[in-house]
Amino acid sequence: MTDATSLIEQLQHELLDEIPLARAMALRVAAHDGDSLTLAAPLAPNINDKGCAFGGSLASLMTLAGWGVIRLAVAARGLDCDIYVQDSAIRYLAPVWGDFDAVSRLADGESFDAFFATLATRGKARLNIECRVPLAEGGDAATLAARFVALVKQP
Amino acid sequence: MTDATSLIEQLQHELLDEIPLARAMALRVAAHDGDSLTLAAPLAPNINDKGCAFGGSLASLMTLAGWGVIRLAVAARGLDCDIYVQDSAIRYLAPVWGDFDAVSRLADGESFDAFFATLATRGKARLNIECRVPLAEGGDAATLAARFVALVKQP
Repeated sequence: MTDATSLIEQLQHELLDEIPLARAMALRVAAHDGDSLTLAAPLAPNINDKGCAFGGSLASLMTLAGWGVIRLAVAARGLDCDIYVQDSAIRYLAPVWGDFDAVSRLADGESFDAFFATLATRGKARLNIECRVPLAEGGDAATLAARFVALVKQP
Repeated sequence: MTDATSLIEQLQHELLDEIPLARAMALRVAAHDGDSLTLAAPLAPNINDKGCAFGGSLASLMTLAGWGVIRLAVAARGLDCDIYVQDSAIRYLAPVWGDFDAVSRLADGESFDAFFATLATRGKARLNIECRVPLAEGGDAATLAARFVALVKQP
């Protein structure tokens, strides 16, 4: 098992063990490549009154994908931080009638190098993240732009 | 049982029966006065890795409070619509360490009279809603500004 695989498994355990709603959503970590994280969720536990995905589930999965990509970068550097979402703007563009993914990436102009440099200097740093829920036929079902803050834990 | 009580009970059943995540959140309808709806949720099923309320739960409860206040107004007029959230802007201002409420109301400049007049003419209407999660000590833990669209169901 590589370190990267270990970190991804650790993230999935952390999400499912410590956030009951993530467990209720039956989410799983689907892919990670450093600057991007994909979380997946089945439709059934995330359905709404209209038979498509509940907006709260789309919002939660995108927010967790944003949180998770930072969490993994922090863990890969052996650091320990609390990471909070500060604000987000969500657009719901099309209904989702099946299982769905949320894919996060750093927003344009952001870099983990700058983020960790600030974190090392100030013990606190912010990062803008963009997420999308892709449609099988192309385009997006939903998008999220969010700002997160990380705080180094005091020993 | 008054009609108003009946509609509120119907909304709570609808949320819990048709949206599994609402059930997982253990939400309940706490108050309704026509232009405002309060949903309540206990902390335990909505907790996160830091021991405070999960951002996805705050977002979901606020979104449902916005959706619900429109749903109740539609039902009170004997209409049948599908109601969707189109976009939202959320601010997370302070952690929530206990049970919490989400309180929705029409945004400034909005009225149900105008909304239902448009819905009657066009079969479709939009409405801006504002929600907040109040802190026990005053101020807000989170706020949401969202736009919803209602579509009259075709018979």
